[in-house]
Amino acid sequence: MITSTSNARVKELLQLQKKAKLRNQEKVFIVEGIRMFQELPRERIKNIYFSESFYHRRREELNLDAYPHELLSDTVFAYVSDTKTPQGVLCVVKQPQYALADILEAQQPHIVVLDNLQDPGNLGTLLRTAEGAGVTGIIMSSDCVDIFNPKVIRSTMGSIYRMPFLYVDHLEETIEEIKRKGIQTFAAHLQGRQDYDEADYRNACAFLIGNEGNGLREEIANMAQEWIRIPMQGKVESLNAAIAASVLMFEAARQRRRQ
Amino acid sequence: MITSTSNARVKELLQLQKKAKLRNQEKVFIVEGIRMFQELPRERIKNIYFSESFYHRRREELNLDAYPHELLSDTVFAYVSDTKTPQGVLCVVKQPQYALADILEAQQPHIVVLDNLQDPGNLGTLLRTAEGAGVTGIIMSSDCVDIFNPKVIRSTMGSIYRMPFLYVDHLEETIEEIKRKGIQTFAAHLQGRQDYDEADYRNACAFLIGNEGNGLREEIANMAQEWIRIPMQGKVESLNAAIAASVLMFEAARQRRRQ
Repeated sequence: MITSTSNARVKELLQLQKKAKLRNQEKVFIVEGIRMFQELPRERIKNIYFSESFYHRRREELNLDAYPHELLSDTVFAYVSDTKTPQGVLCVVKQPQYALADILEAQQPHIVVLDNLQDPGNLGTLLRTAEGAGVTGIIMSSDCVDIFNPKVIRSTMGSIYRMPFLYVDHLEETIEEIKRKGIQTFAAHLQGRQDYDEADYRNACAFLIGNEGNGLREEIANMAQEWIRIPMQGKVESLNAAIAASVLMFEAARQRRRQ
Repeated sequence: MITSTSNARVKELLQLQKKAKLRNQEKVFIVEGIRMFQELPRERIKNIYFSESFYHRRREELNLDAYPHELLSDTVFAYVSDTKTPQGVLCVVKQPQYALADILEAQQPHIVVLDNLQDPGNLGTLLRTAEGAGVTGIIMSSDCVDIFNPKVIRSTMGSIYRMPFLYVDHLEETIEEIKRKGIQTFAAHLQGRQDYDEADYRNACAFLIGNEGNGLREEIANMAQEWIRIPMQGKVESLNAAIAASVLMFEAARQRRRQ
């Protein structure tokens, strides 16, 4: 059992929690909590750490000895945990590697393209909702928030393991590629000419979603084949980015279910 | 200008930021930021505070002298602010007082009932989305998160000024009252028999939404006339409460727009 915060592995865990660069060098990310541990596919496990008290309390019930693991004293565990009330299980997980082709060549593509999304909670919730709505992949501009940020991971509730995603350096080129594949591109835009529920999403489609404060960059919005808007009542100008995306993704799911 | 953190008004502001009980005794809440200041209805203003540097920088542009106000030194302002990077304007606002009748007797009621919702960001986002979707009022069990919590206020983006809401001590009785008024009650439930988009929300309706982790309490769900579910793909069991509510509210808005 590791009992000292100056242990080399403890130091590395702490760095992995904080530094996107190190996570990407090592091609790993960290998940915490029982649910994320239980949903973790075997082949993606790099290391598993239990807190001493968690291990002793849940060992039999959760069959903890079936996993290769290392124990941390409760103090050390609290030190490396990103949460205020750690559950006592933390895993170092291998990053998945998706290619653009994986996303574009899905059956009946239903894609979400994120331009400069910044809020970790928004991205995590969006991943979870996207899986529920049957989205086949998420493409992000390289200036979006890091998907392996612990706050993002937590809000995905496990969808991080299953939803294909990709960061791209040149979003314009990727959108051209999406269009060449015959996938219809819809920009969620306050100046959209068409109400979102009047467009047809039953064929391959991609929704372009912009930054929380500023929406889509003009050059990205201009590449979309259609601009759609969610009609607003009251004095609300726009919706939160994750909410807007959710309304669109579930409208596509609704149309596809009814076809 | 107030320059000391031991000033009595400064101490009171800090208490108002932190303590729901004091806010409710004084029947006020605090908003921060330029947008919340600009949208604030005149008759709801109790006090306005500017930071020294904000006042000098934006005085003419924002016509700040048209408002009764007090100046705080930048240090004191940062001390009372709830945000990490304060914008320099903070208002003490009178709490609105809505009655149940205001909500139930709206034209074509479209009501959201929240049972034990806990996350401030969820409640704030839900208010903003509800206004956009044309919701006519929000009813909350008394154990929901405090709507005047600074984090809730921030995420409402101004909808807190406009969306009628009410906390009720006995949610069961209120739901009985809703039903007596001829408002159709729909529980968002994982065991719903009907897909959410197969129900009709064009007449007076109320959506019952549960707690983030546990959903609706059974005794509350059992009072609803219909149980509806949002069909899920992948391994997602449920949606975030604010997302689920958003999908339902915008489905109602869609049906009403098309009738």
